[in-house]
Amino acid sequence: MLRIISQRSEAKAELRRICDRTFDEEMVHKEATVQQVLQTVRRNGDGALLDYTEEFDGQRLEVSQLRVSALELEAAYQQVDKPLLDAIELASRQIEAFHRQRAPKSWVHFGEHEVVLGKHYTPVDRAGIYIPGGRAAYPSTVLMNAIPAKVAGVPRIVMCTPPGSNQGISPAVLVAAQLAGVDEIYRIGGAQAIAALAYGTQTVPKVDLITGPGNIYVTLAKKMVYGVVGIDSLAGPSEVLVIADSEANPVHVATDLLAQAEHDPMAAAILITTDRTLARQVATEVEQQLINHPRQILTEKAIAHYGLIVVVESLDEAVELSNLFAPEHLELEVAEPWDLLPQIRHAGAIFLGYSTPEAVGDYLAGPNHTLPTSGAARYASALGVETFMKHSSLIQYSPTALNKMASAIITLADAEGLPSHAHSVRVRTSSPEQD
Amino acid sequence: MLRIISQRSEAKAELRRICDRTFDEEMVHKEATVQQVLQTVRRNGDGALLDYTEEFDGQRLEVSQLRVSALELEAAYQQVDKPLLDAIELASRQIEAFHRQRAPKSWVHFGEHEVVLGKHYTPVDRAGIYIPGGRAAYPSTVLMNAIPAKVAGVPRIVMCTPPGSNQGISPAVLVAAQLAGVDEIYRIGGAQAIAALAYGTQTVPKVDLITGPGNIYVTLAKKMVYGVVGIDSLAGPSEVLVIADSEANPVHVATDLLAQAEHDPMAAAILITTDRTLARQVATEVEQQLINHPRQILTEKAIAHYGLIVVVESLDEAVELSNLFAPEHLELEVAEPWDLLPQIRHAGAIFLGYSTPEAVGDYLAGPNHTLPTSGAARYASALGVETFMKHSSLIQYSPTALNKMASAIITLADAEGLPSHAHSVRVRTSSPEQD
Repeated sequence: MLRIISQRSEAKAELRRICDRTFDEEMVHKEATVQQVLQTVRRNGDGALLDYTEEFDGQRLEVSQLRVSALELEAAYQQVDKPLLDAIELASRQIEAFHRQRAPKSWVHFGEHEVVLGKHYTPVDRAGIYIPGGRAAYPSTVLMNAIPAKVAGVPRIVMCTPPGSNQGISPAVLVAAQLAGVDEIYRIGGAQAIAALAYGTQTVPKVDLITGPGNIYVTLAKKMVYGVVGIDSLAGPSEVLVIADSEANPVHVATDLLAQAEHDPMAAAILITTDRTLARQVATEVEQQLINHPRQILTEKAIAHYGLIVVVESLDEAVELSNLFAPEHLELEVAEPWDLLPQIRHAGAIFLGYSTPEAVGDYLAGPNHTLPTSGAARYASALGVETFMKHSSLIQYSPTALNKMASAIITLADAEGLPSHAHSVRVRTSSPEQD
Repeated sequence: MLRIISQRSEAKAELRRICDRTFDEEMVHKEATVQQVLQTVRRNGDGALLDYTEEFDGQRLEVSQLRVSALELEAAYQQVDKPLLDAIELASRQIEAFHRQRAPKSWVHFGEHEVVLGKHYTPVDRAGIYIPGGRAAYPSTVLMNAIPAKVAGVPRIVMCTPPGSNQGISPAVLVAAQLAGVDEIYRIGGAQAIAALAYGTQTVPKVDLITGPGNIYVTLAKKMVYGVVGIDSLAGPSEVLVIADSEANPVHVATDLLAQAEHDPMAAAILITTDRTLARQVATEVEQQLINHPRQILTEKAIAHYGLIVVVESLDEAVELSNLFAPEHLELEVAEPWDLLPQIRHAGAIFLGYSTPEAVGDYLAGPNHTLPTSGAARYASALGVETFMKHSSLIQYSPTALNKMASAIITLADAEGLPSHAHSVRVRTSSPEQD
């Protein structure tokens, strides 16, 4: 079922097709829907949120129910068993430790003639975090979004997540949110949640930045509100590209491919290997493991449409194809993974060696699991503390320094036809005292 | 002509109106135009570029003329006089020196049980830089966009700029591009330039990231292609907010306000001061300087629509209003500017003290002059080396480390209903050898 190809141009074409899978023919209709949701929420506020929640989530809420109450938050702790609570706490500590490393810091540099230059870092005032519901509950996504915001020093972290079916929001999600320092949680999903965060309603505060993954409606909404607020990135379906040599274990590789495919029918799972035997073994093992897979139908769909094995001549060629794809997750299941690193130009996260399945990074190694997808690793990076911060450039000139630079500034301003620019320097330097 | 207000709620409302000035009623029509330009260039490539250049720039070019030739680049040096060349070179050196400071660097951290975590920084493969033409030629904008890309190590820097009127592209722009390390220049403007860079044509290479300011059509085009490529930000009209105490020189302040207003009829120039006398003096001086201003009409428009003086009780109140506006440029024309810094939450660039007019930063202090506008400083920062780079998270676990973490990962994967995630750890840890 997993196709194995070794013809180079075919491989390239397939990789390109898989990379571009996010955008389908119906995008225009979806855009129109999202545009309308945004406008309606902007205009009608809470009322629109309640209507859309009924329409899309099948639940009629009262305004007072939009925000998750302190009582529910308290109760969630009782519903999460000890091993899971411990695991969430462990993950939380590990993620925080990693994100505290090399977090942006303000700095100044003192130059000649008392010139001071630098950067002054500050967090955003309010961050909005979107946590998808749908196919599963994702406490890990809560940690991965809220902890960097907390480390950045964001004073107010607001979370939206769909209301869930009968059982409501997953207790594990509510516990993770509390551990990570989320300040308030609203049961709102989809494009309406993004609209609420971007524009504010009577109940939901307007934020400055929205992060977090979501389905195509959420992603389109984020793109549309960009400029009104900041956003982290446009997330597409998840993907892994495994580069494996002949020493890689086919069972491990097959399981890793399935661990990606089980996310979503549009998830992509790609193996590039130098070993034709391994390729066949992996294909067989994938088929084997799919037989009793608890998420068989969607996982099979992903494998059928966006699963691929490419056999190449060398690891260099494997890396070259990987760079073409710019994968969200790249596993280097090879004997000397660090030797390949200098050639890797685009990848959201790189998992090195035989003992580092992607799941390690998905949950608790520390680095963020919110990563660029669909080729965005060509220009984008993981979510991080810096996503929730911004800096102001600092410039202080002394009268002496300004005098030294005056003629160059005036020359440039004149060349650009901006007389008051030149004048602003002239009035400060032409005479010793200006009144 | 410059209104002076001191009523607090009126001041807030005015600041909000000015901050939101970018988006007008006709945005929907402009969006439709831009959408069509993007689709046509994507479909028809060079042919569409030539048609749009004729339609919007009034020039019928041949395909062979799209790219600026080596001969023209050479000739540009002859057309720029020595003082201007020296000034461009000086600015170039200063900008490069600042951008080399604290540029992102790859790092790894070694943890317990041979765990390695880190970040691997790489530049984008191709950067596209848009340089507006129109009202003036901006060699400084070329430097501010291309130098960070060069410092980042971008292997291919592509520039687009409108063809200019009869004289062609400004020689100063062409010289700045060569000094800054631009690899190729195309005479294409507007949304069609953004389309060419995002999708590629027969002549123009597809890039990974597009930076640079532009008019509303360019900005809308950048927003629409975001996701196909990365973009730096959505630039609106420029703005300055000056906070001045009673020791500030009214002539200096007035000139600085005009230096902003002269950019664009939509530019904003705001003074917030504790001194009512200074407020009146500045208003008078602005009127005075406008009389013979070479760019009188557009500067007057900007001052009339988006000029404002607010008189406040204290510098604390001034900073509070400034935070509300989140200005692109903030001048602190006060005796102790560094004392205000801890309270400033949002500003693209901060100019400290009486001897630091914005023009210093616009041209050659070193920090970037491409800054967040229209309140985007709430969540965004200056263009920088990091804009042209991205990082891959690095994760390597040893078998021992994986064993230590196995049960927590499996617990989390089970809680999220992702069996193959759990299995990918189990197959690596349940027995000493897997085949």
